[in-house]
Amino acid sequence: MERGGVRPGELTITPDPGALPGDARVVFIGRVRTPWRTLADCPKNVRTAREAGATASLEIEAAYRPGLAGLEGVSHLVVLYWMDRSRRDVIVQIPRHAGGPRGVFSLRSPARPNPIAMGVVPLVSLDTDAGRIEIGMLDCLDGTPLLDVKPYVPSVDAIADAAFD
Amino acid sequence: MERGGVRPGELTITPDPGALPGDARVVFIGRVRTPWRTLADCPKNVRTAREAGATASLEIEAAYRPGLAGLEGVSHLVVLYWMDRSRRDVIVQIPRHAGGPRGVFSLRSPARPNPIAMGVVPLVSLDTDAGRIEIGMLDCLDGTPLLDVKPYVPSVDAIADAAFD
Repeated sequence: MERGGVRPGELTITPDPGALPGDARVVFIGRVRTPWRTLADCPKNVRTAREAGATASLEIEAAYRPGLAGLEGVSHLVVLYWMDRSRRDVIVQIPRHAGGPRGVFSLRSPARPNPIAMGVVPLVSLDTDAGRIEIGMLDCLDGTPLLDVKPYVPSVDAIADAAFD
Repeated sequence: MERGGVRPGELTITPDPGALPGDARVVFIGRVRTPWRTLADCPKNVRTAREAGATASLEIEAAYRPGLAGLEGVSHLVVLYWMDRSRRDVIVQIPRHAGGPRGVFSLRSPARPNPIAMGVVPLVSLDTDAGRIEIGMLDCLDGTPLLDVKPYVPSVDAIADAAFD
């Protein structure tokens, strides 16, 4: 759901969370680099992004690069990024793939009160000095603001038999 | 790493990201309810929290409760929460369990430039009208601000053979 479009049957809340002063502030620690330059190019989700096959990268601002030390032994990352083109007020949405309206918290839609996307990606290569991490593909526009990078810890993060309807 | 304590060998950055005007603003959509009332009570991480056995819950503010519709078919949630007691400037840390200094992005420490914690928890029960989700245990203080709830999607989120050193 991008700014401007609300489908019949979708529900928005007032005030728009994006228009509020907010309760806390985030800093952009870098940017996500992908081949996707327009919304029309963008894959619909992480799965279709992966199927596109190419890699993406994370560019980390100089001040934050010392924070990359120690990632050498990590195979996969949790990446949190800020979907800055997304509406924040559409609380009930009608996604194309679903049969009817769904609450935003039951969807992975980028349009949400806090438009923080979470993706799990392989760490392909790391250049700490340059602040560059080559990763598997993500489903966001080139230049999307980056909020956080964490090591993926399979003992707590991997639930193979989880159900998702 | 809580406000006040920096160990010898740890590295802070200036300006403190928590003192900057920030690049975007988040809203608190609710609170995490846990039995942990003081930092001394708090388990060290999600694994030790789980071992404590009890459950936690998420309280969703009234305005955001319509967003819970559709979670009935979801077994596990991705919960994003705001570690509001944590420092944001300690870019290299010396965790108790590690042998030496590690960059913050190679750790799951709550002290990070954007103190957003991510936990994967089972959804135990859901009361949409009351805005209450009973979940598995989390490792945060009672009252910790909640940023987002997402369905866990095992086909993209579960990487059982990921390596974490």
